[in-house]
Amino acid sequence: MEANFEKELNELKNKVAALGKAAPENKISMIVFSGDLDKVLASFVIATGAAAMGLDVVMFFTFWGTPTLRDKKKKVGGKDLMGKMFGTMLPKGFGQVKLSKMNMAGMGTVMMKSLMKKKNVASLPEMLNVAAEMGVRIFICEMSMDLMGFKREEMIAYPNLTFCGVAKFLEEAQSSKIQLFI
Amino acid sequence: MEANFEKELNELKNKVAALGKAAPENKISMIVFSGDLDKVLASFVIATGAAAMGLDVVMFFTFWGTPTLRDKKKKVGGKDLMGKMFGTMLPKGFGQVKLSKMNMAGMGTVMMKSLMKKKNVASLPEMLNVAAEMGVRIFICEMSMDLMGFKREEMIAYPNLTFCGVAKFLEEAQSSKIQLFI
Amino acid sequence: MEANFEKELNELKNKVAALGKAAPENKISMIVFSGDLDKVLASFVIATGAAAMGLDVVMFFTFWGTPTLRDKKKKVGGKDLMGKMFGTMLPKGFGQVKLSKMNMAGMGTVMMKSLMKKKNVASLPEMLNVAAEMGVRIFICEMSMDLMGFKREEMIAYPNLTFCGVAKFLEEAQSSKIQLFI
Repeated sequence: MEANFEKELNELKNKVAALGKAAPENKISMIVFSGDLDKVLASFVIATGAAAMGLDVVMFFTFWGTPTLRDKKKKVGGKDLMGKMFGTMLPKGFGQVKLSKMNMAGMGTVMMKSLMKKKNVASLPEMLNVAAEMGVRIFICEMSMDLMGFKREEMIAYPNLTFCGVAKFLEEAQSSKIQLFI
Repeated sequence: MEANFEKELNELKNKVAALGKAAPENKISMIVFSGDLDKVLASFVIATGAAAMGLDVVMFFTFWGTPTLRDKKKKVGGKDLMGKMFGTMLPKGFGQVKLSKMNMAGMGTVMMKSLMKKKNVASLPEMLNVAAEMGVRIFICEMSMDLMGFKREEMIAYPNLTFCGVAKFLEEAQSSKIQLFI
Repeated sequence: MEANFEKELNELKNKVAALGKAAPENKISMIVFSGDLDKVLASFVIATGAAAMGLDVVMFFTFWGTPTLRDKKKKVGGKDLMGKMFGTMLPKGFGQVKLSKMNMAGMGTVMMKSLMKKKNVASLPEMLNVAAEMGVRIFICEMSMDLMGFKREEMIAYPNLTFCGVAKFLEEAQSSKIQLFI
């Protein structure tokens, strides 16, 4: 009888260990695909809010989100024609991102920014600082960088900045409780 | 030997309790960021479908989604210039939401609505009623309300309507099986 | 004492079984709502990447995503006026999808496609083939098909192609670790 118990107990232990491995961590993973002011802002409101609640936060910037993480003060040479075009046409850092709607030739974006200031909503550069302090991890999609001709040297300085592919992101997402595509 | 079993059994019990606490409930949480007819419609198709399957459903309306929950018959005064501008330019309730593509100066939206009627797809106001009956909970983002100058008195009447911040939503999302950003 | 153990062990077994049932499978479910080149591309990069990592992958094409799965070589008759209009105005298959930004009357889309070729990023038709080989399951939303007047005979040939409603998708999403709305 005792031997039987021991066997059942061991089987149960293995099952619990497997379940524990499958259980998602207290983590949120976001794909920031958009480069619009409103959506990038939403992603940082969620990121800093989640970090404040004690969640581990991962942001994966890809496609239109990628150019918003460029440092406008950094200049890099050696780009081909396509790289130069993308470099010029896409927003260079948070200062140039625009609203997805009601942009009205930039007036809507200016209004929204002044409104955020008035209502004490942190600006994107301020949110980035808070995110850095709170340990939010930022990943940048290497395929997007390569497609748009961006170089690592022109991206912002940020602690825990990782350049990686979709597989690395999916690994983080798999062990997350919440995943969002923004 | 028996004492050993008892100890192992208790350890296992604690582990199972912790896993049970981490396991997500039968719940879906959606962030409705968009104010486009097509996306708001999709969010309600998912919400009512999920509720019909017995899931607990939470919708968090933020940014462009917020003005679509205004009641067009309600008038509020005391707004500043910015509040008046947002109030006028953004869709006042479901009756004014437009398609994100193929709007064609409103013609596409009219066509889509007549098509929905013909094909027996419920309209947004009808879906809202179904959602209310099924106990779908709707949250409205206070930061968006504040930014756009909306007042609580001008929002729709809806059972279980909650005004809250991102933290409250993240709490719901953490215990949900499915989370979507729409 | 032994009888007590047996009871506790059985209770624990039932709890573990319930937790095992609630634990999400190694699966990712995506709603492809968008019909833009950039977003459809992102969905296939994630789908094939996830499949390569051994995840079970489900894609649910709805609304603007639906027409992109049409086969441009297939012609079907018997459509009403609305069906003909949607058929003409929406992209007929991957060859006609456009960038959501910087399309510049088609020039941006052509540039992006030539860039993808140069940088060895697989094109959408190539990604679809890889997805098919890897067993990615594709679902098409019947309500969208019905609304836009599409017929099953005009959709692409794909193994495991399923026509279904939102309930079927939610079932898959419920047992998935990752869910995205794209």
